[in-house]
Amino acid sequence: MADSGLPSRPKPEETPAAAPAEGGEQSKSASKNAAKKAAKEKAKAEKAAQRAAQEKAQAASQDANDTAKDLYGPLPESMDVLPTTHFSQLSDAHYEKEITVVARVDNARVQSAKLAFLMLRQQGQKVQAVIAAAEPISRQMVKYTGGLSVNSVIQVTGIVKKPEIPIASATLSHLELHIRKVYMISEASEKLPMQVKDAERPPPATTEDASQADVEGAPLVSLKVRLDNRPIDLQTETNQAITWISSGVTELFAEYMLKSGSRWIFTPKLVGAATEGGSNVFEVKYFKKNAYLAQSPQLYKQMCIAGDMGSVFEIAPVFRAEDSNTHRHLTEFAGLDFEKTFDHHYHEVLEFAENLLVFILSQLKERYKEQIAIVQKSYPKAGEFKLPKDGKALRLNYMDGVALLKEAGVDVSEQERFENDFSTAMEKQLGQIIREKYDTDFFVLDKFPMAVRPFYTKSCPQDSRFSNSYDFFMRGEEIMSGAQRIHDIKELEASMLAKGVNPNQEGFEDYLAAFRQGCPPHAGGGLGLNRIVMFFLGLPDIRLASLFPRDPIRLRP
Amino acid sequence: MADSGLPSRPKPEETPAAAPAEGGEQSKSASKNAAKKAAKEKAKAEKAAQRAAQEKAQAASQDANDTAKDLYGPLPESMDVLPTTHFSQLSDAHYEKEITVVARVDNARVQSAKLAFLMLRQQGQKVQAVIAAAEPISRQMVKYTGGLSVNSVIQVTGIVKKPEIPIASATLSHLELHIRKVYMISEASEKLPMQVKDAERPPPATTEDASQADVEGAPLVSLKVRLDNRPIDLQTETNQAITWISSGVTELFAEYMLKSGSRWIFTPKLVGAATEGGSNVFEVKYFKKNAYLAQSPQLYKQMCIAGDMGSVFEIAPVFRAEDSNTHRHLTEFAGLDFEKTFDHHYHEVLEFAENLLVFILSQLKERYKEQIAIVQKSYPKAGEFKLPKDGKALRLNYMDGVALLKEAGVDVSEQERFENDFSTAMEKQLGQIIREKYDTDFFVLDKFPMAVRPFYTKSCPQDSRFSNSYDFFMRGEEIMSGAQRIHDIKELEASMLAKGVNPNQEGFEDYLAAFRQGCPPHAGGGLGLNRIVMFFLGLPDIRLASLFPRDPIRLRP
Repeated sequence: MADSGLPSRPKPEETPAAAPAEGGEQSKSASKNAAKKAAKEKAKAEKAAQRAAQEKAQAASQDANDTAKDLYGPLPESMDVLPTTHFSQLSDAHYEKEITVVARVDNARVQSAKLAFLMLRQQGQKVQAVIAAAEPISRQMVKYTGGLSVNSVIQVTGIVKKPEIPIASATLSHLELHIRKVYMISEASEKLPMQVKDAERPPPATTEDASQADVEGAPLVSLKVRLDNRPIDLQTETNQAITWISSGVTELFAEYMLKSGSRWIFTPKLVGAATEGGSNVFEVKYFKKNAYLAQSPQLYKQMCIAGDMGSVFEIAPVFRAEDSNTHRHLTEFAGLDFEKTFDHHYHEVLEFAENLLVFILSQLKERYKEQIAIVQKSYPKAGEFKLPKDGKALRLNYMDGVALLKEAGVDVSEQERFENDFSTAMEKQLGQIIREKYDTDFFVLDKFPMAVRPFYTKSCPQDSRFSNSYDFFMRGEEIMSGAQRIHDIKELEASMLAKGVNPNQEGFEDYLAAFRQGCPPHAGGGLGLNRIVMFFLGLPDIRLASLFPRDPIRLRP
Repeated sequence: MADSGLPSRPKPEETPAAAPAEGGEQSKSASKNAAKKAAKEKAKAEKAAQRAAQEKAQAASQDANDTAKDLYGPLPESMDVLPTTHFSQLSDAHYEKEITVVARVDNARVQSAKLAFLMLRQQGQKVQAVIAAAEPISRQMVKYTGGLSVNSVIQVTGIVKKPEIPIASATLSHLELHIRKVYMISEASEKLPMQVKDAERPPPATTEDASQADVEGAPLVSLKVRLDNRPIDLQTETNQAITWISSGVTELFAEYMLKSGSRWIFTPKLVGAATEGGSNVFEVKYFKKNAYLAQSPQLYKQMCIAGDMGSVFEIAPVFRAEDSNTHRHLTEFAGLDFEKTFDHHYHEVLEFAENLLVFILSQLKERYKEQIAIVQKSYPKAGEFKLPKDGKALRLNYMDGVALLKEAGVDVSEQERFENDFSTAMEKQLGQIIREKYDTDFFVLDKFPMAVRPFYTKSCPQDSRFSNSYDFFMRGEEIMSGAQRIHDIKELEASMLAKGVNPNQEGFEDYLAAFRQGCPPHAGGGLGLNRIVMFFLGLPDIRLASLFPRDPIRLRP
């Protein structure tokens, strides 16, 4: 049953006849900017004209007299298989060679009856293509090419040439493609809700849906519109880079853990009881019972340690039913968790975790230089992420942090009484102070007060007001929480009672049994992938570091 | 704020005084086996005697006259930090050297007033230790050691010696540890619900909770008891090996995908609508709305492709609210998903996926030889997993599979009419036929009938009764389903209508918009991690290949 498997050929009558429009959803709202409006009207008229021209050209392509009739139009169902070249492979070595590429139309314009330009886009990278009428290229083919709808996926065959002057608007500015063939693979509707080029600039600070424009009158696409139309938004060079860096953090985490001899685990997200704080947990209908979505793999990681697994890690979604609409909270995020035994002191694990983060952050800089530079073009404000010069994490005690804030005149009376953890504002200020004093955007606070940590945290043997627990910070915001865990059953039960958690509550039986049956000393932590990406790149909102973010009001796409 | 961070010292009065018992939950039910009962009674009496002796010894250790009083008992809070050695590092090179190990007590027995034996266990591996009373080792210390409760975590320092004859019951049979110091790190309750050694043998075929015994009268622990007590169960050599192999499959999947230039993604598990079949989906209370748990990342992977990500993969839980209580269904499992564009034909992606599986399965054999051998000791029935000799996957068309079954006399009339997919029994039989004919346990069926595939499947351009879709099989059971997806919006909407899916249904807006805005041709698939582990190792139940399995009746631990 041989088949060509080629993308199906769109029939001419299927071509959408919708009126051309640029700006889409953005343009629906009344523009406050007259200049912009006029420009748009003009563009609209031009586009309409181009479209009409294209339709005419298509009709003409049926004409047997068109010398180029087999060189453009819908992708033929049977044709020679041409190996395609990726933009990232292109170099000077391709000059004067014929190549075939599959790319999107970033922009198309007819210069004259004999000349048209395309800007081709592939994963955010741009290459200019040009078509000129000269045997066998017909004027019809030039018109068709110049009238292609933005964002359509096309297959182009052409000769790579060196342009007389570099093409500033292209990513690969030192080459140009002289088109010989151009076929439609997937035609985009002319009515796009936003333009990729408008989404390369950061969203306006306000979260309102209204259209906004920058100083030059170019539209600024709001975060809401971007996220509502994520498949288009992801096509930007910036998002291509962000998603690569997110992939990179995950890879580096797994790489470090596996190299250390840790085992990759999967623990259940459907759990029978809300054991880690009932109010922030999502409830699930589970056949005839209720289940809950795990807020962390904490209890399960520990049961793996009790199961003699020595060192384990998990990469999995974490669910938090917190009604927080902030720049750094999501209701679902990717958690990078680990737990491991130690021989003598929990600082063995803390040091392991510090080295893990230094590895991830320094390797990101090594392996994703280009992507970081791309993101910085759009989000330059926070500046380059600073790592400690000596390659070792800066570790302070919690009370050192309190003292630094106090020195800076901050009221830390609650913190000195161990009643509250730092507020977000205090953390940010501490991040500033530490950046100035120690020249690093990454630091660790150890020995948090016992009062602000969960029941399974081991208290400090020398001073029970404190605990063997730590938080990791990037640019003054928390990205990881961790601790030595209590492994002694009596101590664990006492700690639960002291925290107002009933050890006899449903759902704790199996967890407590694991310690009753003997468990080695261990410590661990949980990282938030999206926060690492956000703070490393200095993005203003965590939603920019999630493919399809979830918050109390967003459940789509 | 320096602290020792050492595991807290258990107070003598905290030692559980519960009556000693072996077999735990198993022994609650009336034994059908007289021999076993007698043996148990004897063991019980011996244990009680040992325990009494240990208590006496402990009391005596307070005695200043005990020459060994600092060499055993609870782990001292301050002591020299002794570097520990892992069993896996031990070799002949350690003969006559002193080492310190942290391990569990697998078994302890007093031979005489002057001699006791311990079997130490570390991640399933066993080493024998012996203690003899001779200055400074006291008789009290010997008694204490021989009376240690099974599964306690202890720290032992001793001299490695070569035993006169190899110790058959130990994993490292060519060495023996002559104890100089022994300290308690975490004491196990004497009342264990099951013994690790009893869980090394496969569970009885019946799922009943009743105690059962093998031909020699040794208890067989039911699957239910194992899963109810998973932290103990995980300590078996078999489960240590299975969890390593599960980790290995995941690592190999990620390794192959990353090497191919694919991006690691995380798509939401909380979705706003039940788009992939409403009846099998879990419902979640989401603030004031309803949400659902994603049954697969299918629609999101495709939106990433529409977002120009080229090739993506995800490793994440998959939720299925199917009320199926079978050996191969879970309500939550680890999904290994991928999606990628192709240039000319979906077979580019199919071949990629075939090579992915051949890579994973052959590398498992390379990297996890030892672990595979360990699992085979417990589960020898299915035999070694056979891979195609030439390193290329065997690919047949669906109709070739139908023909093979027909040849073997199976009634395939429904399949010939494209009304039904193969039944599980038919798939297994086909697996047998193919194993005999082609000498492989891994094969691929391509070109499934369109009638048995979901709406987003691309139909075969040459014969619309079929589709560009494929399933992967291991030992005749499905481990992956995949296909070329429809990327043309008109074709997609028509396919939805043909399948009785309303394109205007809530939840499809964003998905359909992605194709309306242009999307390149693509294909992909979704693998079940637990099924790969199960069928590769020939395990009789998928629950044995999940750390904490979930099925319609199991939500714990």
